[in-house]
Amino acid sequence: MDFNRILAEKARLIEEALDRYLPPEFAPPHPIHQSMRYSVLGGGKRLRPALLLGAAEAVGADVAEDLLLAACGIELIHCYSLVHDDLPAMDNDDFRRGRPTSHRVFGEAIAILTGDALLTLGFELLARAALVARQGSEVGLRVIVEVARAAGSEGMVGGQVLDLGGSKNADPALLLEEIHRKKTGALFVAAVRAGALLGGAQEEALQKLTLYAEELGLAFQIVDDILDLDEEAKLSKLTYPAVFGLPAARARAEEAVKKALSALDSFGPEADFLRQAAEFVLSRKS
Amino acid sequence: MDFNRILAEKARLIEEALDRYLPPEFAPPHPIHQSMRYSVLGGGKRLRPALLLGAAEAVGADVAEDLLLAACGIELIHCYSLVHDDLPAMDNDDFRRGRPTSHRVFGEAIAILTGDALLTLGFELLARAALVARQGSEVGLRVIVEVARAAGSEGMVGGQVLDLGGSKNADPALLLEEIHRKKTGALFVAAVRAGALLGGAQEEALQKLTLYAEELGLAFQIVDDILDLDEEAKLSKLTYPAVFGLPAARARAEEAVKKALSALDSFGPEADFLRQAAEFVLSRKS
Repeated sequence: MDFNRILAEKARLIEEALDRYLPPEFAPPHPIHQSMRYSVLGGGKRLRPALLLGAAEAVGADVAEDLLLAACGIELIHCYSLVHDDLPAMDNDDFRRGRPTSHRVFGEAIAILTGDALLTLGFELLARAALVARQGSEVGLRVIVEVARAAGSEGMVGGQVLDLGGSKNADPALLLEEIHRKKTGALFVAAVRAGALLGGAQEEALQKLTLYAEELGLAFQIVDDILDLDEEAKLSKLTYPAVFGLPAARARAEEAVKKALSALDSFGPEADFLRQAAEFVLSRKS
Repeated sequence: MDFNRILAEKARLIEEALDRYLPPEFAPPHPIHQSMRYSVLGGGKRLRPALLLGAAEAVGADVAEDLLLAACGIELIHCYSLVHDDLPAMDNDDFRRGRPTSHRVFGEAIAILTGDALLTLGFELLARAALVARQGSEVGLRVIVEVARAAGSEGMVGGQVLDLGGSKNADPALLLEEIHRKKTGALFVAAVRAGALLGGAQEEALQKLTLYAEELGLAFQIVDDILDLDEEAKLSKLTYPAVFGLPAARARAEEAVKKALSALDSFGPEADFLRQAAEFVLSRKS
């Protein structure tokens, strides 16, 4: 079966779970739940939660409630970061995935609160995942701590701080790498490790999957930068094609995918989703 | 010993722990850690974490790392909510506790990210509390779920949505009560229940302490409203004195404290901190 269909199947599973875990649209107080659902259920590839499920598969685990809860927890944390990054005080974006951004629809105050509520619900789902974790609640707690670090001031939030221009004097190539590692890479790694840990990975498999996720996150972000070239150029932003030129950026992404794939060498066909995901990241057009 | 000294002692313990758990001021990326520390370590009564410790004492537990981690987790979640509530898109406050608000010092983007990072670190500390919980990690996870619900869209965030004026057609007295229960009450209740649960409370004690916390949170918020009368009046805001008049508001706070105290009837002197806290809430001048 081709990868897009497999990814779509995983995305459907995740969206059904998100729909169940999010409060109903018209539950009071108005309009926070409408806004939460608008910000989460409006599309997206669901790549991070799909990778979480794929990593669990790679270590031999079936999809069950603990994995779905954790996958949705990570997706909510990803969605909160998009809502806040789009705010006027941040990147000031009016559109995302072809629809008006949350603050354009609900206003700035509700958008800030929507992000806050999604982040909070994300951790609630991770805690519920830990309560039903087949590997035990201590493994589930380790996942929460890792996700919190990946999302916090030394991870995703820190990456956004750097992206806003906090360190203008740094070497652009080094700074760019650090922004990407923190802003995108950290949550990719946390998603893959969460799936592996909840799936019962031994230490060696966990290390290989971590390496896979680091390279995959890097390739994903470089390709994102390249795809963004076709959109309205944001010239002030530091991007791989801007710093290294398009051919070198492309080569760097290909190298990262090669490294990601070789990290999976000792895995059997149960890691095929992760392998195909790496090819997909390189070939995607949007 | 008088209550202010006992509270100051608990606050000192909590502030030493916050100082340890927060990243160092000049750790990169600049200036997020500076801003996090500015937003947390600039004063405050530390009432919520002190109540958490007090509730654990009331059920016979000594202060240990699990309680300190959870107390600091709840304080960080409280501090994040202040940083976001103060933003220009929300209450647009320039000062808090006599100092410029975080967005006045660090700008709006960093203030949004500071709140995000504090909320995230709050959950990390709660997860670390669960990992070392003397009552076991499942009790610790129950605390995380309860705190997340208290802080989320049906708790604190929901209260702020209502406070922003989402339901202008509702009965003002009912709306006011709901705002207070969600915006302040929920986190008071979560703090007290967290201390009780981590301290090993049995179900009956837990229920009594929950009742205590509900009434205490209500009294706290009414007194807050009364104290705010002396500040620049925010006439657009729904407050107890505005809706009920000052004497009735005062009487309602006194009644709540009376109920809070009687919820503690079956406890011995180990609940004296909680008793004194209830008296303090009524008599405080700032």
